[in-house]
Amino acid sequence: MDPVAIIGASGALGFGLALRLARTGVPIAIGSRELARAEQTAERASAIVPEGAFSAHDNAGAARAADTVVLSVPFRNQSETLTNLKGVLRAGQLLIDATVPLAAAVSGKATRMLGVWQGSAAQQALEMAGEGVRVVSALHTVSADSLSELKRPLDQDVLVCGDSRADKRAAAALIERIDGLRCVDCGRLEMARTTEALTALLIAVNARYKTHAGVRLTDLPERLWD
Amino acid sequence: MDPVAIIGASGALGFGLALRLARTGVPIAIGSRELARAEQTAERASAIVPEGAFSAHDNAGAARAADTVVLSVPFRNQSETLTNLKGVLRAGQLLIDATVPLAAAVSGKATRMLGVWQGSAAQQALEMAGEGVRVVSALHTVSADSLSELKRPLDQDVLVCGDSRADKRAAAALIERIDGLRCVDCGRLEMARTTEALTALLIAVNARYKTHAGVRLTDLPERLWD
Repeated sequence: MDPVAIIGASGALGFGLALRLARTGVPIAIGSRELARAEQTAERASAIVPEGAFSAHDNAGAARAADTVVLSVPFRNQSETLTNLKGVLRAGQLLIDATVPLAAAVSGKATRMLGVWQGSAAQQALEMAGEGVRVVSALHTVSADSLSELKRPLDQDVLVCGDSRADKRAAAALIERIDGLRCVDCGRLEMARTTEALTALLIAVNARYKTHAGVRLTDLPERLWD
Repeated sequence: MDPVAIIGASGALGFGLALRLARTGVPIAIGSRELARAEQTAERASAIVPEGAFSAHDNAGAARAADTVVLSVPFRNQSETLTNLKGVLRAGQLLIDATVPLAAAVSGKATRMLGVWQGSAAQQALEMAGEGVRVVSALHTVSADSLSELKRPLDQDVLVCGDSRADKRAAAALIERIDGLRCVDCGRLEMARTTEALTALLIAVNARYKTHAGVRLTDLPERLWD
């Protein structure tokens, strides 16, 4: 099984994703800004999923270690992280961007979004990732808490955007290894401005109802990735 | 039973809503720009829902005839319609705005949104509706086709935004008369920029999957409007 790198795996979403994927047999390259932090995170993950294969790296090391890279960092750090990965990310690599430009990045409300010049964090990732990196946007609406609490069954959709159907299919095949997550093709990468914004909407809903809501699209056909 | 006015009831969404609400016993004041058009629409509606109570008006007449007004016009016409309703809409009236600023309004793609200066069509409605009109945003993600085909069971959420919980509750009580629609409080009116944008996202999903997708939020409590 090919490993998957998770950049920002010490954060809540990245960590939950690392746990859930590792349980399905995917070796996880844990990436953090500092190697020591990654090592702590890998230890923490191993304690929770003993059968999992976790390796610890700085972000560049993680990105080198896998053909599929999940970018799961706060928006405040997305640009810096991608700058640091320049020359590391390579053509053909699949980059799944889960960044959400919440206004919280600049001390605003988590129910509000920042305007990103390129249109969305995903489009910023595409611009910065370098020629040939296959950028797909996904995983914004899955709550970190729901992912991390392994006993909690998941039953929700992951909205996937990207300019290549094949790349989206590859991302979906990975994500759907996790029980209870169904991936839906939501169109081109530019649609990420809406899937990212859904996070802020869900934060508002969660505040009202004290829950960790997810999204489900209704009336879809049985097979979504033929 | 108090009547409900539907401004733009000759359009697909307004018409479907008129049918579905009329079936539950709500008298519908059908509003169109021209009275003759409203009369045709009322006739058409009566033929489909013979037990329904439909009256035909120009938009101003419809708005005068009811304490609850649904605004269901193309974004291209929203501003003009609200200008024409100045002095007609009155304090205390509930205005449920379902307008979606699709780029299609200016010959752009239906999967893209226009930027609205106030933030969203709903916020434009609030600004234009006049002092004391209670503006709630809802119904963007319910497809007109699904509403109009009365035989098709509905099973989806309506995302409701507004600055007053009481106003949202009132809108929800009305909308939930329709079997299979559940209203979810998605926060303040400013969140409408995301619920409106979901329409464009669903249009992209519908194009991909040849369906009429709706939205469902997961992991919510049983009671949403206590």
